[in-house]
This record gives sequence, structure tokens and C-alpha cells, in this order.
Amino acid sequence: MPTTIPVTVQQNPSKLVLLDQTRLPEEELFLYLDTREAIFEAIKKLRVRGAPAIGIAAAYGMYVCLSQKPYESLEEMTEDCTSLKQYFANSRPTAYNLFWALDRMQRRFDTELQKEGITQEEILDALFEESTAIFEEDQAMSKAIGKHGLTVFSKDRHWGVMTHCNAGGLATSGYGTALAPLYLGHELGYQFSVYSNETRPLLQGSRLTAYELAKGGLDVTILCDNMASLVMKEGKIDAVIVGADRIAANGDTANKIGTSGLAILAKAYDIPFYVAAPTSTFDLNTLHGDDIVIEQRDKDEVINGFGRRTGPADAKVYNPAFDVTDAQYISAIFTEKGIIEHPTIEKVRKHLLTE
Amino acid sequence: MPTTIPVTVQQNPSKLVLLDQTRLPEEELFLYLDTREAIFEAIKKLRVRGAPAIGIAAAYGMYVCLSQKPYESLEEMTEDCTSLKQYFANSRPTAYNLFWALDRMQRRFDTELQKEGITQEEILDALFEESTAIFEEDQAMSKAIGKHGLTVFSKDRHWGVMTHCNAGGLATSGYGTALAPLYLGHELGYQFSVYSNETRPLLQGSRLTAYELAKGGLDVTILCDNMASLVMKEGKIDAVIVGADRIAANGDTANKIGTSGLAILAKAYDIPFYVAAPTSTFDLNTLHGDDIVIEQRDKDEVINGFGRRTGPADAKVYNPAFDVTDAQYISAIFTEKGIIEHPTIEKVRKHLLTE
Repeated sequence: MPTTIPVTVQQNPSKLVLLDQTRLPEEELFLYLDTREAIFEAIKKLRVRGAPAIGIAAAYGMYVCLSQKPYESLEEMTEDCTSLKQYFANSRPTAYNLFWALDRMQRRFDTELQKEGITQEEILDALFEESTAIFEEDQAMSKAIGKHGLTVFSKDRHWGVMTHCNAGGLATSGYGTALAPLYLGHELGYQFSVYSNETRPLLQGSRLTAYELAKGGLDVTILCDNMASLVMKEGKIDAVIVGADRIAANGDTANKIGTSGLAILAKAYDIPFYVAAPTSTFDLNTLHGDDIVIEQRDKDEVINGFGRRTGPADAKVYNPAFDVTDAQYISAIFTEKGIIEHPTIEKVRKHLLTE
Repeated sequence: MPTTIPVTVQQNPSKLVLLDQTRLPEEELFLYLDTREAIFEAIKKLRVRGAPAIGIAAAYGMYVCLSQKPYESLEEMTEDCTSLKQYFANSRPTAYNLFWALDRMQRRFDTELQKEGITQEEILDALFEESTAIFEEDQAMSKAIGKHGLTVFSKDRHWGVMTHCNAGGLATSGYGTALAPLYLGHELGYQFSVYSNETRPLLQGSRLTAYELAKGGLDVTILCDNMASLVMKEGKIDAVIVGADRIAANGDTANKIGTSGLAILAKAYDIPFYVAAPTSTFDLNTLHGDDIVIEQRDKDEVINGFGRRTGPADAKVYNPAFDVTDAQYISAIFTEKGIIEHPTIEKVRKHLLTE
């Protein structure tokens, strides 16, 4: 297991345990939260981030809040469960995974409540079980992605691997997606040197990926995004692995800005380029990458991002959040189900239909 | 002429006029200097930067210091000239162009001194003439590079041009190298939209290039280095122009880190890639780009560059100052003598031998 798990829970007394990602990498601060207000604030202020991690935090959060004191009655407990669910749902109103996790916890609560003679303690045990299941299912999915990704490496040599942005444990229950093969391989005695592009403008690669890989005991080196060509030319990179925001039906992959350039450089230097993502990332309604609209973000992220202005205040700035990598540049996609080599529309469809 | 000329001189009273580049882009501060200590400090602290601009500043600086007061005798003036030359030479001890300019001023002083009945005022007039010649020769060279580079564009359409780092007027007498075709074309009614990569880690592209182009009235947009692939894919770029630190005999070109990646992307998107540099940049003793040793710089530039730590304090960091672009990716090199298309060792040699 990676040592940096961004969200866990403790019992007796029950508390939600979060690594405050807004303090990284300057400070490694774990928060022990047991009030609804504190948990709401942590989700809202991005102290926990990444769809899977947010869902897990909300599920554990419901359990922790409901276990703070015995209720006067089961009715009062039920009311509080509904109120908590609505309250947490407002913490990040656009986070699909948040609602999904809260709904699942509410359903489990309702199911337990139907049972004859159920006690508050028994309901709490069931909620702990459900939130733990959400955590463990995410972990199993990441681990499966890692297992499939790891098949392109071997133990008989040392591997240089480049990654971009943070598709790591900090966004999930611990293994991440792009980083899952590296964490898993490291546990099994594979040897990796990871090169983490800093990923302008928000620097997730240096702030988060370099932090979590080093904590996990992996060898990691930070570089600026524009240094990728040289480090590839020098023969230091044997593979590139990135995550994905959305994958079109033909395999074209939207991911953090800079990814498409890395794929082109990798091809020029004859280095395999891999995408790692759960099958839920595929959007079969989007036939082609050109159909994906690129989000433009605020100019201050680029010219005022370090607490100091680094470009003329009235400058025009181009700040797209992601780009789309053509499937022709992708050597393979790793999912929890297996590997899609040289993705095409037929191969993607077949992979997703496989049980 | 570009409106931003980093170093000029004024007379009556004589002062060296420098744009303080350490304050850019937050503040546009012109310094009016007339003491040797202030001029030494300005060169040492990089308030003026770029080999040609430093040489011009030192030449003007000698003239300004010698013209502050009438000397008791020509002998006293001669002693002061020698002392000034030695003093300024210590301001940036690795700057070749600095010594070259100071030597040239000293030689002119010595030549004038030979003349029968020469006065202090006549010597000062000659030194003003000499320093102005250094300035104007640099300007003519930049303009010639610009004139040759401009031949790949035309006035009948709008052109999107990407550049990297600062190969602009701020390092020279005003036109720069990579930016010279753009400034010259702008004066002649050509239409450009310039995309300036911010150029991590030191951000010369956003701090300096975007500043000077906007001041010159050109349309300029800042982007992060990792956005180049997307903006090329979107069809916004018709040409890439960069400067050069050193060009090998076969045309392989060392330039600011990130240049080689841009050249590969440009080729993938079928966009011409140009290098602009004076012929003095060619090093015929270096036969091949692989023979150029890459300077590694301090890790703090990458993870502690803007007054805030952006990576783990104990992180490993890869921070090469430049990379080498293979000649195969270079569509043409613009020099003050003309254009070398698809450079090879034979074409480079022939170009340099041409009068």
C-alpha cells in the first residue's frame, strides 16, 4: 500500500482523518474531524480533492457524524441522516461522486432501518461497513488498473517512467490510476525512477505527485514541462503513463494540458505512451476527441500563480485546462478490466462489453 | 523601431539610461545613471542583460563617466579611462561582449589621444561616436536578421507566430534576433499574432517577451510551455521562431530549455520552425549538437522560484538550462547575411564564408 492515503477513518472515538492537501508540499498536516461543519469545510476548501477521495470522505463523514452521540430515538437518527446527506451534498455541488457516495450511504441506512429490532449501534456498524466498502472497492479498482499496467514492465531491469499532473493516490483511496502500476510494482520489487512533470499552471506534478511518490518510497525527480524532450532524448524515459479525464469512443483521450505534447514527443523518441483510467472514464457518446470542448481557465493562474505577478497585468493569456491526445499516439490504455492496445473504436467497445 | 530599447544614452548632462529589467513586468522603471558605482551595480545585478545590451551599456557608461567633469589634464583623463575600463570589466566577469566593447572604447580613446592638440571635449565627442557606433552596428545586425526572416512571411494575410524565452529587443539594442522579423514586419504593415511561451523556470517569455512585444504594439498572448501542442493543433500557429545560444557546424542548435520539444511538435503539426541568430553564434569547432555539454542549474529555480515553495524541499530536481534541437527539425536559420534553408554542414560552411 502507498503510505499516503488521503482519507481514512478511525473508531472509538470515530473521526474522519484527512491529509490537508492545501498545505502540501510545505506542510504535512492530518486533520481529525468529527463535526459536520468541519467536514463540510474540508471538502469545500479542497483539503480533500479528486472524485474518488471526495466520495470516500463524504461516506466516512456521514458515519462519523452519526456516531458522535446516542440519539433519543431511531426517528431522530433518521432525520439527522437525511439532514447530513443534504448538507454534505452542498459542499461541492458539481462533484458527481459525492452524491453517488451519499446516496449509497442513505440507502444502506434505510435498508438497516427496515430490520426488526435494529439498534443504533447496529446501524452504525452497517454504515461503517458500507463506507469501508466504498473505500475498498476504489482501492481494488486502482489495484486492478495497477496490476494490468504492471504487465508492460519486468523485474529484470530498471525503468524510467514519466508522468504528468496527479493521477495518483492523493485523488483516490491510495493507489491512484497512472501511479497504480508504479506503487504496485514497487511493492513487488520492480525498480522505477519516476520523472514527474511539474504541470503548469497549478503544479500538481511537483506539489502532489512528487510528494506522494517520495512518501511511498519511490525514486522521483521533478522537472519543468518543457524539459520532457531533453530527458527523453537522454534515454532516461522508458515509458510515459498518464491518467485521463475522459476517453472518447475511438480512444482519443482528454487529460491535463500538456499530455498531447508528451505523447507526440514519446512517439518521436520511440517511447511507449500509456493511459491509465477506470472504465467509467470512457464516454461512448463522444465518438471523437474533436467533439470534446476545451475548458478555458482564468489568466491569473498563469501570470499570478505564485503569489507574484509574472507577466504584464494587461497581457492576453491562453489557459486551456486540458488537451486531447489522438489515439494514434497511445500505445495502450490500462483499465481495471485489462489492457486495450493501440485503441480503436472497435477495440474500446469490445473491452467495455467484456465482463 | 521597437519602443522598448533597454539601453540608451542622453547628453547635456550625459547619463546612461537603462530600463531596469529586474523590475519587469511589475514596474517599468528607467534608471538615469552618471556614476561609475551605479553603472557597475546595474550591470552586476542584471538590471541590463543580454550580451549585446551589456556591451552597449558598458561603452555608453565609459563615455558618461568620463564626461562628468573637466579633468585637470589629459593625463588624468587617460588614467581615469584605464581605471574605468578595469572597473567595469569586473561587473560581469564571464560576459565576453562586455570586454569586447570596453576594449573598443579604450582603443578609440588611445587613437584620439595621438592627435596633435586634441582637447578633452574632442575626445568625448569621439567616445560618444564610438559608443553610438557599437549601438548602431548591433541595431543594423538585428535589423538585417529581421529583414531576412521577414521574407518567409507576406503582407496578404495574418500570421500566428510562436516564440520561446526572450530573444528580443531587451537583450539587444532594440530589435532582438527571433523577434526582429516581427518588429520589422509590424513597422511595414505585416500582421502578426505572437504566442509567447512563458519559459519555465525563469519565465523570460511572460516577464520579458510579452512585455516588450506589447509595448511595441504587437498582439501577444502568453501561454504555459505545455500548451504549445494544443495551440498548434488548433491551427493558431503558422511558424515558430526562436533564438540560439550556440549553433554547431551541422546546424544543430543549442537554445533555452524547451526549444527541442517545440521543434518536434512543429514538425508533427507541419509548421515551419526557424532559428534567428547572428553568424557569431556559430561554433564551427563543435561539429555536432551531441558535443555540447548541457549546463545543470540550481533546483530552487524550479521548486522555489517565486517566493513560494512548489515542491517537496528534499525533492530531486532536473534543471537543464538549455537543450539541443536537431538540424533535421529546423526549416531555416536566419542570420544577418541571409537564410540557411534545411541546414547541413556544407550549407552552414558556405553561408559563413560568403561575404
